[in-house]
Amino acid sequence: MPLVNGREDDKLSIHDRGLHYGDGLFETIAIRDGKLPVLWDRHMARLRLGCQRLGILPVDDELLREEATLCIQAVTDGVLKIIISRGVSGRGYRAPSAGDVTRILTTYPASTYPASYRDDGIVMRVCRTRLGCNETLAGIKHLNRLEQVLARVEWTDPEIIEGVMLDSDENVIEGTMTNLFFVDSGGLKTPDISQCGVAGVLREWIINIATENAMRCEIGRYTLQELEQADEIFVCNSVIGVWPVRQLGHRIYRKGPVTERIARWLVF
Amino acid sequence: MPLVNGREDDKLSIHDRGLHYGDGLFETIAIRDGKLPVLWDRHMARLRLGCQRLGILPVDDELLREEATLCIQAVTDGVLKIIISRGVSGRGYRAPSAGDVTRILTTYPASTYPASYRDDGIVMRVCRTRLGCNETLAGIKHLNRLEQVLARVEWTDPEIIEGVMLDSDENVIEGTMTNLFFVDSGGLKTPDISQCGVAGVLREWIINIATENAMRCEIGRYTLQELEQADEIFVCNSVIGVWPVRQLGHRIYRKGPVTERIARWLVF
Repeated sequence: MPLVNGREDDKLSIHDRGLHYGDGLFETIAIRDGKLPVLWDRHMARLRLGCQRLGILPVDDELLREEATLCIQAVTDGVLKIIISRGVSGRGYRAPSAGDVTRILTTYPASTYPASYRDDGIVMRVCRTRLGCNETLAGIKHLNRLEQVLARVEWTDPEIIEGVMLDSDENVIEGTMTNLFFVDSGGLKTPDISQCGVAGVLREWIINIATENAMRCEIGRYTLQELEQADEIFVCNSVIGVWPVRQLGHRIYRKGPVTERIARWLVF
Repeated sequence: MPLVNGREDDKLSIHDRGLHYGDGLFETIAIRDGKLPVLWDRHMARLRLGCQRLGILPVDDELLREEATLCIQAVTDGVLKIIISRGVSGRGYRAPSAGDVTRILTTYPASTYPASYRDDGIVMRVCRTRLGCNETLAGIKHLNRLEQVLARVEWTDPEIIEGVMLDSDENVIEGTMTNLFFVDSGGLKTPDISQCGVAGVLREWIINIATENAMRCEIGRYTLQELEQADEIFVCNSVIGVWPVRQLGHRIYRKGPVTERIARWLVF
């Protein structure tokens, strides 16, 4: 059941700064077997970082865990979305110094993507919409998502599942809803997200587990050409897991051994 | 009284895309003597442009006028805020192809800025937060306003009233809540806002009236140094009117004849 500030509700004040300015953060969390996921702590860590960056009072972890547990009580498999905003204020960009933050928790049905996305891979395109750079906003999952919305409306072809987004300096950054990895000479590479992009919790998990397993994993700035010339490409997020990319533009990619190895690790 | 989709209400669905992604637009409109302002048509034109840019179905002008008239019926002097969002949708950036847009209208008390801001001018600073560039989002008043929120929290000194914002290429663009003009050799200059920034309705009105009165008005790309070396600087928006800048950083400016002339034109 949806909760707004701990109470069952599906309505929000029209004076909330989440609406007026996108002045807040969100997390999208996979629920399987009616339980909060293994990656819960990583979601909470990113949310705390986001609050710190925006100067929003951090929400108590235990309170959020209790509310999340209540919110998903009738859900076996689905998606929990948590929105934290700076709360209600009067008019003006100036943030109230000690306002009450707003907590919104709601669930969605589990995504029904075909198994072929995971097994055989997806077709991807390159988006025209560019990501603006801002160190304060980079990495965190804030509510200003028009760049992603604009990127996603660029195509209607149902065969195309995801789009690569570049930043305003033409560096490859991420997918519209996923992070991006590629394989070059057997080593993993993933774009630096210190200037823009989202620090996906599964991205972080993959970087860690690759490192633990002595797989080379480089975080850097890459051009579209470098991505296109990869041996393997995959996208990931904590809800979908890992999807190999079998086609980017006109180029065809195999589901290679590195992607398969990482996908096998991902059993939680 | 606040209206949501034409009905008296101060609550909104937690599934509205205005909240989730900032997927919408707003207008902030001065109400004086209980009437919609002379600049109403310009506000509506910008709102239509915003809908077009975001691919949101445009809202009927007459309907909005009726709802605005109803919303301000108990207001003599104040501010009307109109928010238009793409409406309610399920999870995901992908925009629903034919959803119902959400209309939110609410009023705020008139701003109570000291007359000295208008008469003697304000103190301004330069913000560290940069504006990202995106041609589709430039000019329109969309709901992704974290850059402005971050810029506005940079200072707490109550003597400083507004901040200059530059874009990621270090061009001067605007104030956090105002547009910016400066005077150089008797001519008016205002930053180009084709890559980022808001196309303020009063900015447009000033450009037009200056041109009609054979005052030189140049729209261009300007550095902070060019702004600092100006003979006069002023900021404007449709709610506050025109405020001369008497200090930017450590430099002092006079309220000069060009600013005074424009302020005199602004009697509606």
